[in-house]
Amino acid sequence: MPPLDPAVAAGRNAVRAALADLGPGSRVVVAVSGGADSLALAQVTAFVAGHESWDLRAVIVDHQLQDGSADVAREAAKQLAGIGIDTEVVAVDVGRAGGPEAAARSARYAVLEAQDADAVLLAHTLDDQAETVLLGLGRGSGPRSIAGMSPINGIFRRPFLKLRRTETEQICRATDLAWWVDPHNSDPAFRRARIRSELMPVLEDVLGGGAAEAIARTAEQVRADGACLDDIADAIDDPLNVASLASLAPALRSRVLRRTALAAGANPSELSAAHLAEIDRLVTDWHGQLRIELPGGVACVRVGDSLAYVTTPVGG
Amino acid sequence: MPPLDPAVAAGRNAVRAALADLGPGSRVVVAVSGGADSLALAQVTAFVAGHESWDLRAVIVDHQLQDGSADVAREAAKQLAGIGIDTEVVAVDVGRAGGPEAAARSARYAVLEAQDADAVLLAHTLDDQAETVLLGLGRGSGPRSIAGMSPINGIFRRPFLKLRRTETEQICRATDLAWWVDPHNSDPAFRRARIRSELMPVLEDVLGGGAAEAIARTAEQVRADGACLDDIADAIDDPLNVASLASLAPALRSRVLRRTALAAGANPSELSAAHLAEIDRLVTDWHGQLRIELPGGVACVRVGDSLAYVTTPVGG
Repeated sequence: MPPLDPAVAAGRNAVRAALADLGPGSRVVVAVSGGADSLALAQVTAFVAGHESWDLRAVIVDHQLQDGSADVAREAAKQLAGIGIDTEVVAVDVGRAGGPEAAARSARYAVLEAQDADAVLLAHTLDDQAETVLLGLGRGSGPRSIAGMSPINGIFRRPFLKLRRTETEQICRATDLAWWVDPHNSDPAFRRARIRSELMPVLEDVLGGGAAEAIARTAEQVRADGACLDDIADAIDDPLNVASLASLAPALRSRVLRRTALAAGANPSELSAAHLAEIDRLVTDWHGQLRIELPGGVACVRVGDSLAYVTTPVGG
Repeated sequence: MPPLDPAVAAGRNAVRAALADLGPGSRVVVAVSGGADSLALAQVTAFVAGHESWDLRAVIVDHQLQDGSADVAREAAKQLAGIGIDTEVVAVDVGRAGGPEAAARSARYAVLEAQDADAVLLAHTLDDQAETVLLGLGRGSGPRSIAGMSPINGIFRRPFLKLRRTETEQICRATDLAWWVDPHNSDPAFRRARIRSELMPVLEDVLGGGAAEAIARTAEQVRADGACLDDIADAIDDPLNVASLASLAPALRSRVLRRTALAAGANPSELSAAHLAEIDRLVTDWHGQLRIELPGGVACVRVGDSLAYVTTPVGG
């Protein structure tokens, strides 16, 4: 028997660690694109699932955005059949809201969230994590935007967040899986592709190597810090009372304000730090401002010693 | 009278805002290198100091590392005399500890910290801030390393953290100040110079412009989050009790552990997240580990239900 490939071993260990809480009979779904990362994830998960007696299957979302996408899905399903994984191909119609990447993502997650499963596995790697952090750094919308992707979020789990993309390719090579290379990944029309092909090499060169790991490591700690502050902010009573808000540290107050604005119906993807800073001034720099309009058709007003949210009249 | 240059106006406003708490007679020192940033800072501060009746002077630290450094210092002092600022030139002998940049920094701060002043002004700009964050991102040592420089830290203040480097050059041009261009700033032997000349342009290009501002903005929020968690951690009682530590969120526990390790004498610049993770396992994954050696000649041990720090014997 040839020695176990180190990348295969790393992949199996990553799946074991990420799914350690799942007992026999657990329903596990792997989301597969046909790329090296998700085929490798399916491969090592099939091995672990055999030992742990999980009920494993795969879902391929065909976004129908590129010519031949059905062929890509069929080829991936064939690879998965070779591993012994039942696979469902779901073709979706991708809208246009938020741009092509965001629309494809929404359509994909809608399919995956609807899975009847204990865990849906996503194959994001450390490289994807670093790219996500850099995208967030470019937006400049604070710690939340550079915290990267969480290893666990609802039914979703990302066992490969500490594996390198090259390791997933090595897993495929070592186990004779043919993967698909998405031409979008090297298309400079996509910012993520440019981060991968142009920015990361310069970062690695200038920052002295290990930049992707360093970025992922920092993101993990930023996420832990943010989660801790979110928890503390969530536990604060009387979140609309001005005196109570004024007594908080700015980092907590901004989180309490964010929570109340979202609860009132503000749009989470459009609510910015600038909006929260405006609401903050109703607390800390009040001189009669009338109302702070927020995305999602709500506004924040100050009524005596309290903040209140009101619905913006249609057309108002 | 020609209209006021916008960069000069921005510089004056920045100084006013950063020093708003200083009354008449306050002793203000500007640290000057001879570069555009610090000459511009001296220029706008002189204007504000005249209005506010501050007692202003400048200090130039001659690091004696480059040929002609005394000439650079003399030329800068001449520019400052033209503005009407008394200037002291302090020549220092730079050691070698931690590399040339760190050693020069230590020597410089030793001189500046010894100033008899209410505020010592440093001319770091938004560009410096972004570069500092990227350096920290490359180290991968967590939120603390990407929080950048604080606008106020003891007697030090950085009024220009939201001004661009180009604005400081514009201030010098508008006020006829001749500045010195440090050849180290474009010497690829220095990582910061490579960040400036090679990495930032790619970042700006790939991330779509405004990258330096975006990075500085995120750093500000990361710093606020970190300060808030530090304060909460500092207020936690019984910081060595294992049950009390185990009840904390990881982000708080790591801070409490850091605080106790530093109080016990661990070396702050060498104490890493990896060390703290090892101490953490004395709390959360205890199975009889003997002692965790820390930089600075201290070790952490578990004694019953408590952590304790012991001094490492010399040569032990």
